[in-house]
Amino acid sequence: MGTAPFPQHVIARKRDGSELERAEIEAFVAGATDGSWADYQLSALLMAVFLKGMSPRETAILTEAMMRSGTVADLSSIRAPKVDKHSTGGVGDKVSLHLAPMVAACGVVVPMISGRGLGHTGGTVDKLEAIPGFRVGLSLSEFRAQLERVGVSLISQTAEIVPADRKLYALRDVTATVESIPLICASILSKKLAEGIDALVLDVKFGSGAFMKEKARARELAVALTSVAKAMGKPTRAVMTAMDEPLGHAVGNALEVAESVECLRGSGPADLMEVTYALGEQMLVLAGTAADAAAARVQLERSISSGSALSKFRELVAAQGGDPRVADDPSLLPACPGKVPLPSPSDGWVRGVDALGVALAAQGLGAGRARAEDAIDPAVGVSGLAKVGQRVGKGEPLCFVHASDRDRLADAHAILARAIVVGPGPVSQPPRVGEIIG
Amino acid sequence: MGTAPFPQHVIARKRDGSELERAEIEAFVAGATDGSWADYQLSALLMAVFLKGMSPRETAILTEAMMRSGTVADLSSIRAPKVDKHSTGGVGDKVSLHLAPMVAACGVVVPMISGRGLGHTGGTVDKLEAIPGFRVGLSLSEFRAQLERVGVSLISQTAEIVPADRKLYALRDVTATVESIPLICASILSKKLAEGIDALVLDVKFGSGAFMKEKARARELAVALTSVAKAMGKPTRAVMTAMDEPLGHAVGNALEVAESVECLRGSGPADLMEVTYALGEQMLVLAGTAADAAAARVQLERSISSGSALSKFRELVAAQGGDPRVADDPSLLPACPGKVPLPSPSDGWVRGVDALGVALAAQGLGAGRARAEDAIDPAVGVSGLAKVGQRVGKGEPLCFVHASDRDRLADAHAILARAIVVGPGPVSQPPRVGEIIG
Repeated sequence: MGTAPFPQHVIARKRDGSELERAEIEAFVAGATDGSWADYQLSALLMAVFLKGMSPRETAILTEAMMRSGTVADLSSIRAPKVDKHSTGGVGDKVSLHLAPMVAACGVVVPMISGRGLGHTGGTVDKLEAIPGFRVGLSLSEFRAQLERVGVSLISQTAEIVPADRKLYALRDVTATVESIPLICASILSKKLAEGIDALVLDVKFGSGAFMKEKARARELAVALTSVAKAMGKPTRAVMTAMDEPLGHAVGNALEVAESVECLRGSGPADLMEVTYALGEQMLVLAGTAADAAAARVQLERSISSGSALSKFRELVAAQGGDPRVADDPSLLPACPGKVPLPSPSDGWVRGVDALGVALAAQGLGAGRARAEDAIDPAVGVSGLAKVGQRVGKGEPLCFVHASDRDRLADAHAILARAIVVGPGPVSQPPRVGEIIG
Repeated sequence: MGTAPFPQHVIARKRDGSELERAEIEAFVAGATDGSWADYQLSALLMAVFLKGMSPRETAILTEAMMRSGTVADLSSIRAPKVDKHSTGGVGDKVSLHLAPMVAACGVVVPMISGRGLGHTGGTVDKLEAIPGFRVGLSLSEFRAQLERVGVSLISQTAEIVPADRKLYALRDVTATVESIPLICASILSKKLAEGIDALVLDVKFGSGAFMKEKARARELAVALTSVAKAMGKPTRAVMTAMDEPLGHAVGNALEVAESVECLRGSGPADLMEVTYALGEQMLVLAGTAADAAAARVQLERSISSGSALSKFRELVAAQGGDPRVADDPSLLPACPGKVPLPSPSDGWVRGVDALGVALAAQGLGAGRARAEDAIDPAVGVSGLAKVGQRVGKGEPLCFVHASDRDRLADAHAILARAIVVGPGPVSQPPRVGEIIG
């Protein structure tokens, strides 16, 4: 190894649109991790990457360097195939909570490390914490031991995994360099590949409630994610899914846990199950435990009808210190004293339920964070959300608001009344699942 | 005034190519000055400006905000016109040392605040410090008092003038964001306009020894500088001058002082005097003390032939604590024990003297800095430099090297032997002064 490239030379090369060398990208990631690059140099390079892009080769090198900036979990002692799922984030997206035990019940190990909510509503880890006693902060050795015993574990980011991403993500957030496809790719994949998985399925969302609102941009991200992951030797597929209206009927942490339990009991909402099966099918196919999507679908449906997925969920909750009885009695979850309906202003059909509007209403109720340090109220949210295409009569509820006080209730009602549009004439519900990439 | 715009919103707008509002630019400059923007946010915006540019309107607002980040000298008590000259920097550029007293001898006040050398060779302030006793660090009130009394003062940047530029320049240097026309414009003009001048003449150089090597880019900078300065109400003209070979015969701090004294004595090299007169003519015309360039030229030539410019130089040197006898006896300047000629390898004509090569040789001798904290040796450098178009015989000196030790001498000789090209057949010396812009 020669001497590390100077930060300003690396920055100048990317600024001028050149493809960076491996040593330059590794110097940048090492600099972010050990502090040898100043924050102002990191952010200047982040902006240059934002505006000049990175080739697939550069993105793969960045991903690998970031992955190796911390511990890479060694799950080689587990012989079963290990597959994870990652979603780019949407409103009402509680898929991981029931999909992970469904897939584990089919014999595929699911080692899932998730983030907290960065958008308007809680993330998977926030939802799990709505279960009384549930511990998301396992160490990597506890995580591995649980995967060996139970076949599934859902934990939060640990300090050992990809420290470079914590540094870079914090900088990107305050320097307007978040929405860059190579930087998003490297951030997502470095953390997922550090889990020690064999394959990965991505849920890449588009629409008003998605991180990437435009379908074309989301597709670009899906292509980049799958090609970089493959270049790193990990079979990966991306399922494009629509996020114009929330997934399912519930938005809010405890309310979403309850809806996931309904899914495991065989009574999940159609749109939510459509996405769940599409993702689960790809997981089983990539794991090699199903020959094709149809065969995988049969296995996944059987995990529900047999009760094995619900058992696996109880086992998972108990293993992480939570109360497994929530799988049978949702009244054990945190709840507001009551819920207040939002009546439909007219007879007609639900023409649109704006996911971003619902998310803002839920955030205002306390279900999400405005800043990283904000606390979340697990009980609040929106339930019984009407779906696009649904016929409603004047005065019938379009949803129910679970609020901790009257002011927040009034604000949420006002936002939701604008977000849910009722009009004359029937409309059909658009499909959720689009193209599969990779 | 409302609340200041958030740094990340301002960064995002520039990143997306929008024209920034006055309040956004003012927030950035205030943030650089008072520390309310983090360095990583400043550098992210600098990179976005580098890559997305700034309109003339934005550049003028940035310049004004930077100028107002510190003290703006109030020279309104001085009734005579006050005009300064600024050069973008070149090799052997000692013009300020003799031009300032020439123009002052013609009745125009010259309030000149200069930087140290940022390139390979010393800046005006470094050259002045080669004069025994000369103080460049006057306070602004000493500066004003001397301008009232002597009509000319040459000092270094003070802490009170444009603190925002000190912060931003230091960041630009380590984040590869120096070569941006709007940022260069705002940096130069904010400092010059803070001097309290009525008008400004710019020497914008192009060629191998210039900051902007390409003529088209240099012209772009000249157009930007003059239009922004005019938008701020300051009559300004830019003289484009070639910097492919060094100006005059000497490069090195004391050697250049001696050459400036020769200019004041009427025996300055032709190319150096061509640039000196072109700039001086514009200064007198903008000051309103000459009707046109030809009339200004007569006044400037008379300042030399009458000895008034040399007297003004003595007065200037004495006023700032220096030994005025250097105007009559160059042996009072620091000098090396001897000088060693570089012999011509053949009979022929000098076809090229690469300014960058000469600058690197001079820097190696200790005449310039590699880092801001390096000390300069005032005695070292190159003298008697042959000029392009000059006929030379084999073994005749192409220049003399003034070195402090043998190793440095050998290195300089080797670099200079490559920089000075002798070939068969006559060539003519190209003109130094090009277009006048503004």
